[in-house]
Amino acid sequence: MNAETANATAEAEIREALAHWEQAVRARDVAAIVSHYAPDIVAYDAILKLQFKGVEEYRTHWEQCLAMCTGAMTFEIHDLHVAAGDDVAFAYALNRCGGTGPDGKEMTGWMRMTTGLRRSGATWLTVHEHFSAPFDMETSKVLWLEP
Amino acid sequence: MNAETANATAEAEIREALAHWEQAVRARDVAAIVSHYAPDIVAYDAILKLQFKGVEEYRTHWEQCLAMCTGAMTFEIHDLHVAAGDDVAFAYALNRCGGTGPDGKEMTGWMRMTTGLRRSGATWLTVHEHFSAPFDMETSKVLWLEP
Repeated sequence: MNAETANATAEAEIREALAHWEQAVRARDVAAIVSHYAPDIVAYDAILKLQFKGVEEYRTHWEQCLAMCTGAMTFEIHDLHVAAGDDVAFAYALNRCGGTGPDGKEMTGWMRMTTGLRRSGATWLTVHEHFSAPFDMETSKVLWLEP
Repeated sequence: MNAETANATAEAEIREALAHWEQAVRARDVAAIVSHYAPDIVAYDAILKLQFKGVEEYRTHWEQCLAMCTGAMTFEIHDLHVAAGDDVAFAYALNRCGGTGPDGKEMTGWMRMTTGLRRSGATWLTVHEHFSAPFDMETSKVLWLEP
């Protein structure tokens, strides 16, 4: 297998892994979500903390996030780019996400996500994840923008 | 050169490139900053837009950002992690940054940064950059947190 074929294979594997993870989020399946994470993942999430260290801390955070949105879940990966080497890869995408809050009001918005992955045997594990929304310098408030 | 040596070499090259880029930001040297970017970079910055596409759009954004802070510039990379393959790598770090605004008031805060790189001959180019601060769900305001 030459380098180009290997990278195309790796890219396909990563796209499949991210699609599975995307479905896991929509299904609110925390075990399936965290099955994609390395034990020592460092995550920069959009809310609450500067960073989450390790899969257990990040799992608890996912549980709290999912508990906040009780209704239908929106979680769509758009404009996904994948750069894959043999053992190291990263991906970035826009992410339309949201849900229905306790007040029944639907809230969705566009976020940005970046994922860092390492090959672990036959699979790819996410060792780093970064979610965010941009903010306005004057008001310090989140900007909910369309792509 | 075995794989482990190659990866250690790549990691050292990337740390050096990021240190040079960090110095370029402190020196407000836009040409030196953008010399690290691939022509087709896609950047998710902390402010203003969901994404910046291509080095020219992102250069203009850097110019505007640097013009906002006229005084002494703070730009420090902390807790840098690098995952490097032969041709693809990513890095993430906390970033203490800020400056002195037109009103003479110093503003610094902790951000998070993720960088995606590709080898281009003897150098590494940043093809993706993601900066952000977390926000508070209740107020939609940026959270300025200490690590």
